[in-house]
Amino acid sequence: MAAESKTASAGAIEEVLSRLAFDEHGLIGAIAQQFDTGEVLMFAWMSRAALAETLKSGRVTYWSRSRRKLWQKGERSGQEQRLVELRFDCDQDALLLLVDQKGVACHTGRRSCFFSALRGGKIETVAEVIVDPEALYGE
Amino acid sequence: MAAESKTASAGAIEEVLSRLAFDEHGLIGAIAQQFDTGEVLMFAWMSRAALAETLKSGRVTYWSRSRRKLWQKGERSGQEQRLVELRFDCDQDALLLLVDQKGVACHTGRRSCFFSALRGGKIETVAEVIVDPEALYGE
Repeated sequence: MAAESKTASAGAIEEVLSRLAFDEHGLIGAIAQQFDTGEVLMFAWMSRAALAETLKSGRVTYWSRSRRKLWQKGERSGQEQRLVELRFDCDQDALLLLVDQKGVACHTGRRSCFFSALRGGKIETVAEVIVDPEALYGE
Repeated sequence: MAAESKTASAGAIEEVLSRLAFDEHGLIGAIAQQFDTGEVLMFAWMSRAALAETLKSGRVTYWSRSRRKLWQKGERSGQEQRLVELRFDCDQDALLLLVDQKGVACHTGRRSCFFSALRGGKIETVAEVIVDPEALYGE
């Protein structure tokens, strides 16, 4: 099921930004959860600009700490995330993004980035590669 | 449904700790998700000692950044979390804890800490108080 992405007005964006506690790097952690299945897809970071852009466009945009720039999810791979609903926690210092993930969230081609699990005393891979990463990022 | 909590051997704990990337404060972010319903309950931080204690005991223990000490979830409120499965992401810098949450995860008496949502341009409270916080933390 595809969900319509929601976009927010400038006023609503201002109100959300004023309520949140960004850390000493100007970032806030964001959990992306598939809105209808409940699957936790990934954890990444947002700056004020990333969150504002996400709310304005309805397309989830993060702050890449390694590349030090805004990163619209799926900009290279096409595996975009549409925002269905923004939530935040009681301390206002963590975000829960209910999203509609197209394809796979993980750069390894798995649906979720959380594919390593400790089971029976061993670290196991508990999710399969659905899309060849080469197909996502290759020429 | 209650889940049996899993405990890990010293060797397994060592292996997990060696695989993870803790930040400059020696911490790693942890998402707690109810194992059977998929509900995202809270986001908190773990030090190496917190994660080791969690894996050893099967009771989720975080690092409190405000109190600067280990904090066994539910130690005051009785609303404990049993670890069902530990997962971590492709960058090894975020944890997903599949837990069995007794009662409520949030200190406000709500099941989840993520009870604030942006809906229709307004910030709304989307979860009800289930347990009076006074009953959790009062005398």
